Amino acid sequence: MTTEPDLASVKAYLLDLQDRICAGLAAEDGRAAFTTDEWTRHSPTASASPVLGGGGRTRILAEGAVFEKAGVAFSHVTGTALPPSATAHRPELAGRPWVALGVSLVIHPRNPRVPTSHANVRFFSTLPANPGPATAAQPAGIPPSDREARISGGAETPPVWWFGGGFDLTPYYGYEEDCVHWHRTARDALAPHGSALYPQFKQTCDDYFFLKHRGEPRGIGGIFFDDFSAPGFDASFALLRAVGDAFLPAYQPIVARRKNTATNDTERDWQLYRRGRYVEFNLVQDRGTLFGLQSGGRTESILMSLPPLVRWDYARTPAPGSEEHRLHTDFLRPRPWASEI
Amino acid sequence: MTTEPDLASVKAYLLDLQDRICAGLAAEDGRAAFTTDEWTRHSPTASASPVLGGGGRTRILAEGAVFEKAGVAFSHVTGTALPPSATAHRPELAGRPWVALGVSLVIHPRNPRVPTSHANVRFFSTLPANPGPATAAQPAGIPPSDREARISGGAETPPVWWFGGGFDLTPYYGYEEDCVHWHRTARDALAPHGSALYPQFKQTCDDYFFLKHRGEPRGIGGIFFDDFSAPGFDASFALLRAVGDAFLPAYQPIVARRKNTATNDTERDWQLYRRGRYVEFNLVQDRGTLFGLQSGGRTESILMSLPPLVRWDYARTPAPGSEEHRLHTDFLRPRPWASEI
Repeated sequence: MTTEPDLASVKAYLLDLQDRICAGLAAEDGRAAFTTDEWTRHSPTASASPVLGGGGRTRILAEGAVFEKAGVAFSHVTGTALPPSATAHRPELAGRPWVALGVSLVIHPRNPRVPTSHANVRFFSTLPANPGPATAAQPAGIPPSDREARISGGAETPPVWWFGGGFDLTPYYGYEEDCVHWHRTARDALAPHGSALYPQFKQTCDDYFFLKHRGEPRGIGGIFFDDFSAPGFDASFALLRAVGDAFLPAYQPIVARRKNTATNDTERDWQLYRRGRYVEFNLVQDRGTLFGLQSGGRTESILMSLPPLVRWDYARTPAPGSEEHRLHTDFLRPRPWASEI
Repeated sequence: MTTEPDLASVKAYLLDLQDRICAGLAAEDGRAAFTTDEWTRHSPTASASPVLGGGGRTRILAEGAVFEKAGVAFSHVTGTALPPSATAHRPELAGRPWVALGVSLVIHPRNPRVPTSHANVRFFSTLPANPGPATAAQPAGIPPSDREARISGGAETPPVWWFGGGFDLTPYYGYEEDCVHWHRTARDALAPHGSALYPQFKQTCDDYFFLKHRGEPRGIGGIFFDDFSAPGFDASFALLRAVGDAFLPAYQPIVARRKNTATNDTERDWQLYRRGRYVEFNLVQDRGTLFGLQSGGRTESILMSLPPLVRWDYARTPAPGSEEHRLHTDFLRPRPWASEI
């Protein structure tokens, strides 16, 4: 059992996961296909950017029969020096070069009866410390693979690495059976890795996806974790795969069950309005979004999470007793979904 | 000539300005009227909020013939202790109680040929330092007026105060004559207060309303200033009035000239897409918005600036030579508008 991080295996898993998720969603949509946008970057966009380079494979499905917009992005980004803000709890890592690999997705369905979902799985590692001034002048465009090969190749300073990720669900109209299915799938995926994980990851998710300025959760939660490395690389990577592999089984049955539900303009309007909360969360609070934008990441890939169409209304309040009102009272609060019904 | 701040006169001016601007816009719209939402707050929404209390008069015009959404808000907010983040350049003010008065507006027209506009004028002052523990237990709901009366009433510590504000314009389709009119009106309003002000305030506006993650200006600028107190209270207040009074003469003729221009779905789509940039700026960068949300301000009044309907598309690029493309190449860059044509 190795405890050294195996970057190549993580990358291969993530690319395959992106393939499988896109195939599942395209099959569920039945009409539209994903387009692929491969990109590379070897220089920062902003002068103060800590990003050295990177690339990605962004896949977008737009104007589908079921999905109004679905974005599933693989990215592989490297930086020359971790900004202090990214390492507040580990100040000794500031200034170290780093690599981040991940798959991140947000699905905005057309029918308001189908919930929006978000997932990501990611791996982060520092790279061997910057060489001294004598070699620091090497071209900034150095391919990531050259440096990253040194992670497990007897580097002077051992790398510090961790996994993170999870998935959360944002309904516009609440269905208890969907919430239960979503959370039970998450719980069951985590169970082989320790029974303590699901309650802990659910709590992390509830805490994180909470709009402070609205005093309300973004949705009905799910699971989230970060900084995960304690059981060693192999077991941590296995956990990541369990989470990544659970996304489609958690989401696809809900889509299949709701996508043909009759709907109307009132419900569409409510969906567009509630999507505003998604924008507010992602642009005001989401750490990944803000770090990406501030560190010179690729704006189009980062903001692919934003809904295709959104509305804001002043002081809108659903009528008491309406289904829209019940979303707030019955669904937008932490509930022990996995053990309900 | 007094140099002590006269809070009551500032408040009276701002309330009257709100009345006049709403009347002008409603007349230009011709169909919809503003509704008024008066609110007060005497306790914080979040446990760590530094807001003591306040109130406001938010006016909204929705679904008008010309204006899809127009919000003109007067607010009068007080806080118990300035957060360090708000006083980075004046650390000696941290912890001081404060009062902020202002009128802030954002107008989102329906026709894509009419630009969106934003303005605000505001006054900020510290209040006499917090009394000792013996009187600190007085009710949190103390009306602002009781404490504020002490600003000019021989307080122990002299108040630190300043004015700020300005206006900027965000077109979806560019018209040079509109940009020239907008900037000349601003320049002429500032001229009696010193010829150095317009170039300086224009630069501040260009620097501030720039989307870093997009590498592009929000619009064609205008004027902005902050921390203005150097010539004393009377002259500073006169400058604020010049700016506030110039908004309607700067904006209304542009609305009148463009509001009946023929348009189509393609232009509407472009408008909704470009409105996304407005949301991105306000939620990611705008200091007033973020300070308001983080300090427990009234969310609905703060976010009334967001457009009524918005769309995001992945990696959208206007066709070279199109009017949409010309917006980027010819208008979304700093230009000496006041001296053009």
